[in-house]
Amino acid sequence: MAEILHRIGVQAPPEAVYDALTTVDGLAGWWTEDTDGDAGVGGVVRFRFLPGGFDMKVLDARPGEAVLWEVVDGPEEWLGTRVEFTLKQEDGFTIVLFRHEGWREPVEFMYHCSTKWASYLLSLKKLLETGAGDPSPRDLQISNWH
Amino acid sequence: MAEILHRIGVQAPPEAVYDALTTVDGLAGWWTEDTDGDAGVGGVVRFRFLPGGFDMKVLDARPGEAVLWEVVDGPEEWLGTRVEFTLKQEDGFTIVLFRHEGWREPVEFMYHCSTKWASYLLSLKKLLETGAGDPSPRDLQISNWH
Repeated sequence: MAEILHRIGVQAPPEAVYDALTTVDGLAGWWTEDTDGDAGVGGVVRFRFLPGGFDMKVLDARPGEAVLWEVVDGPEEWLGTRVEFTLKQEDGFTIVLFRHEGWREPVEFMYHCSTKWASYLLSLKKLLETGAGDPSPRDLQISNWH
Repeated sequence: MAEILHRIGVQAPPEAVYDALTTVDGLAGWWTEDTDGDAGVGGVVRFRFLPGGFDMKVLDARPGEAVLWEVVDGPEEWLGTRVEFTLKQEDGFTIVLFRHEGWREPVEFMYHCSTKWASYLLSLKKLLETGAGDPSPRDLQISNWH
């Protein structure tokens, strides 16, 4: 199994980072404006982008600590994979350890998603530090695959 | 073994991308201004950042196609790992498939390096598309680890 890993530090309290990961408004502020659904544990959140999207079941959410999603609808390569955000405090930053695990093969789409995840996590950081992120469809285009 | 994967598309010819990966001036334009050494096959390129740096032996370089480095000096987690850039053309973009492989464990430093690599590859894209990248020490700070 292959996995995508990232680490960012956000100059905001863990509660604010947690809110941006566990509310529809928060998620719409950094990942994609076209977000709806139920972001509570057991709920499913629907994220849509220009070419398609993902439905995430919220498997776990521990305030200020961790959020765990399972992909229940979306591209075949994503189905059944899990996305985990682990939070901790360090040097005045809330550190976000990001892990998207369960990829069956390191296909080219995984290379793309890794770079896009980095870009969206920097959007999360920007949202919390400046009040405005760069969610889809205003996200940074990184290639012909958007 | 764990690996970091990324994919960007650069609106520039493959020769220009290749030059940015195989000349000291090119590398200094997107990764770190403090770059010197011999960027030809068999040479060693020395990259330095505020907290330290990496020496890369150039194992292979095929114009417009691929560049392969081995880390011969640097942090313990990087020693012996390999960094590979594979180029191809698609939809008017030069696609860069990036792979940093041979990590023994997915340690927290690997999470950090994955996000930093994404940021530097976007700097490479910016260098080639606008004439100016964001190399160290002018690179984007992503956390308390810089």
